[in-house]
Amino acid sequence: MTATPLSVDGDRLWADILSTARIGAYGETGMNRLALSASDGEVRGWFEAECRALGCTVEVDAIGNMFAILPGTEPGLAAIAVGSHLDTQPAGGRFDGILGVLAGVEILRVLHASGERLRHPFTVINWTNEEGSRFSPAMMGSGVFCGVHDIETIYARADKEGVTVGEALEAIGYRGPHAPGHLPMAAYLELHIEQGPVLEADGSAVGVLSGVQGLRWLDVRIRGTEAHAGAFPMNLREDALVSAAKVVLATQAVALNHPPGVATVGYIHAGPNSRNVVPGEVRLEIDMRHPEEEGLAAMETKLTAEIGRLVPGAEVSVVWRKAPVAFDAALRGAIRQEAEGLSLSAIDMVSGAGHDAAHVAGKVPTAMIFIPSREGLSHNEREYSSPQQCADGANLLLRSVLRADQLS
Amino acid sequence: MTATPLSVDGDRLWADILSTARIGAYGETGMNRLALSASDGEVRGWFEAECRALGCTVEVDAIGNMFAILPGTEPGLAAIAVGSHLDTQPAGGRFDGILGVLAGVEILRVLHASGERLRHPFTVINWTNEEGSRFSPAMMGSGVFCGVHDIETIYARADKEGVTVGEALEAIGYRGPHAPGHLPMAAYLELHIEQGPVLEADGSAVGVLSGVQGLRWLDVRIRGTEAHAGAFPMNLREDALVSAAKVVLATQAVALNHPPGVATVGYIHAGPNSRNVVPGEVRLEIDMRHPEEEGLAAMETKLTAEIGRLVPGAEVSVVWRKAPVAFDAALRGAIRQEAEGLSLSAIDMVSGAGHDAAHVAGKVPTAMIFIPSREGLSHNEREYSSPQQCADGANLLLRSVLRADQLS
Repeated sequence: MTATPLSVDGDRLWADILSTARIGAYGETGMNRLALSASDGEVRGWFEAECRALGCTVEVDAIGNMFAILPGTEPGLAAIAVGSHLDTQPAGGRFDGILGVLAGVEILRVLHASGERLRHPFTVINWTNEEGSRFSPAMMGSGVFCGVHDIETIYARADKEGVTVGEALEAIGYRGPHAPGHLPMAAYLELHIEQGPVLEADGSAVGVLSGVQGLRWLDVRIRGTEAHAGAFPMNLREDALVSAAKVVLATQAVALNHPPGVATVGYIHAGPNSRNVVPGEVRLEIDMRHPEEEGLAAMETKLTAEIGRLVPGAEVSVVWRKAPVAFDAALRGAIRQEAEGLSLSAIDMVSGAGHDAAHVAGKVPTAMIFIPSREGLSHNEREYSSPQQCADGANLLLRSVLRADQLS
Repeated sequence: MTATPLSVDGDRLWADILSTARIGAYGETGMNRLALSASDGEVRGWFEAECRALGCTVEVDAIGNMFAILPGTEPGLAAIAVGSHLDTQPAGGRFDGILGVLAGVEILRVLHASGERLRHPFTVINWTNEEGSRFSPAMMGSGVFCGVHDIETIYARADKEGVTVGEALEAIGYRGPHAPGHLPMAAYLELHIEQGPVLEADGSAVGVLSGVQGLRWLDVRIRGTEAHAGAFPMNLREDALVSAAKVVLATQAVALNHPPGVATVGYIHAGPNSRNVVPGEVRLEIDMRHPEEEGLAAMETKLTAEIGRLVPGAEVSVVWRKAPVAFDAALRGAIRQEAEGLSLSAIDMVSGAGHDAAHVAGKVPTAMIFIPSREGLSHNEREYSSPQQCADGANLLLRSVLRADQLS
């Protein structure tokens, strides 16, 4: 590579964001581009044609992951890859996932215009069904690529209308010939919006991710005694909602006592849920995350003990445990240096949300870059990052790709 | 009247309870005899025929309230009335309301068999639609009788299928000729199951009610900020469910600090109610009751202040205020004396639930008697009071009727 300071064209990137956002748009800024829908097929077609025009071959694997590959100058090297996803939530926005793929396309445009090439093949990846809104699980394509999910099991997953993943892939023509995990990668970098308020609150331009938080999902079932709200004296009650309220506050307290952990009771159902009946049963669903396994395990132990103390007889079950993911130290260091070179204020942070990069990190040296989300919004038609913020992120991604090209 | 100690026949009363429970039965002991349904029509027919056979005339008023009237010995006196309701909840039991009417029928049987007559006309009332399950409001018939509700407004109330009260009355043939409130009453006595656990816990045979608790219904709306459960740090959250949990506990605390008041959050709805989203909005419905207006007002003031302190910005609205009802002191004293004469252990208590007697008390000297409910259950197919408990209650009702007959 040359030392010429390559730079993305922020206006061109913004134009790509706005023009492709028409595919699956609703309202002013809303996006409904569910995985493997017709609009997903359409944006995939745009991506494929655009990358081919920029000198790439485009490979599609069995789960529909798309790999736009620009050959490198040295034969036999594994790819330096960037990517994210072009599918959205049913009421999503224009940046979540999309930015990471379109920034990759913009890097292709820069390389194409300049005639520069990496030593390694440079690959832009569109992972299938990151959102998991139509077909579960989320991060499906990267999970299949990395061997986390069996392809036949995933083919059989159906949406609410009974259409399977295999059928939906066929329908849009993206059930490809390549076996899952076919592409050797030397490094994987993902640019994404933060989906939280930290960068905006902090006034930082970018976040350099140390990893993805580990996760515990707990289900809590509390049984009380359903009773007449007028006729049952307070001292004879077993009010399941009063017990549940204590669990909600204990969940918050456990997170506050284990920084930087977070814990949320996002779901509550009370039965019979009638104003003048003392609730006889409550179910809660808890989400707990922490960047370190020890912290997460401590949160789980503490909360389980607290629930047992506060609500004897409550049934607590852990329905999902996911270990934290640590990103590659060398790539993170390179990103930080490049941010400094670009005069972008950067902070280290950990991702609270899952990303395709979390799967990929199990196979390939991986890192992630965040740019700010206005008001921390995502999965929301009001989700927004400014043209400058997108350009800053894409520029940092470009510089990091060039650095990664030298690391191996 | 003679001094002969009249007494109910507990077996005969129990047989009436079991045989009429076949009308609208489901399962082993469940009852689904909604107001103005075909099965309500059927049990009304049984009641009417039975009372006529026992020497009564049966009058039906415009809202379908039924008055079985056994003439007294002295002309021109107002009625001594007993009553309750024969309609049930959709998943109700065999005693709530039914006991009060069938105990009246049993008293008619006793008077008929003995040839005894009261000085006053003795009247057994079946009030229309006490439960309010099919048509709201509850306690409809007694409310119309007492002038609380306008008859034309009530006629227009529709069930979920769009059938109006007026149409349903016509359909079962119980839209009667008498104007609401037509029957002059000297006293009204209602026997009912407790619907709470106090008598059972206390080991008492009967409760002598001092009145019916007053009531406040509050709606609370709490807005937070919907956010990603992983990506939003704890210190930047506005979790509406955490706020709601504080309100639930404050509601309980206010009741505990204002004995014998009760307060319940029976309904909770969180939005978007998804495990991995910090709740952005919660709605709560609160039911508060206290036997004294001062206590109730203090509870309302305190809870409203507490919510304002704990959750600034929470919207609190009082959607229903109902003043406590005090029953007639002379009748209560008579009932207590008669309980003593029957060697029935009696305690004074207040009704937490609403009853037709609460409406009637605004017009006529009124009192109520409770017998124990097993486990405090009601509105439940497992609701149960034993044959002995029913007989004790009916006997006390009979003695109290005879005493009331001497009071005016």
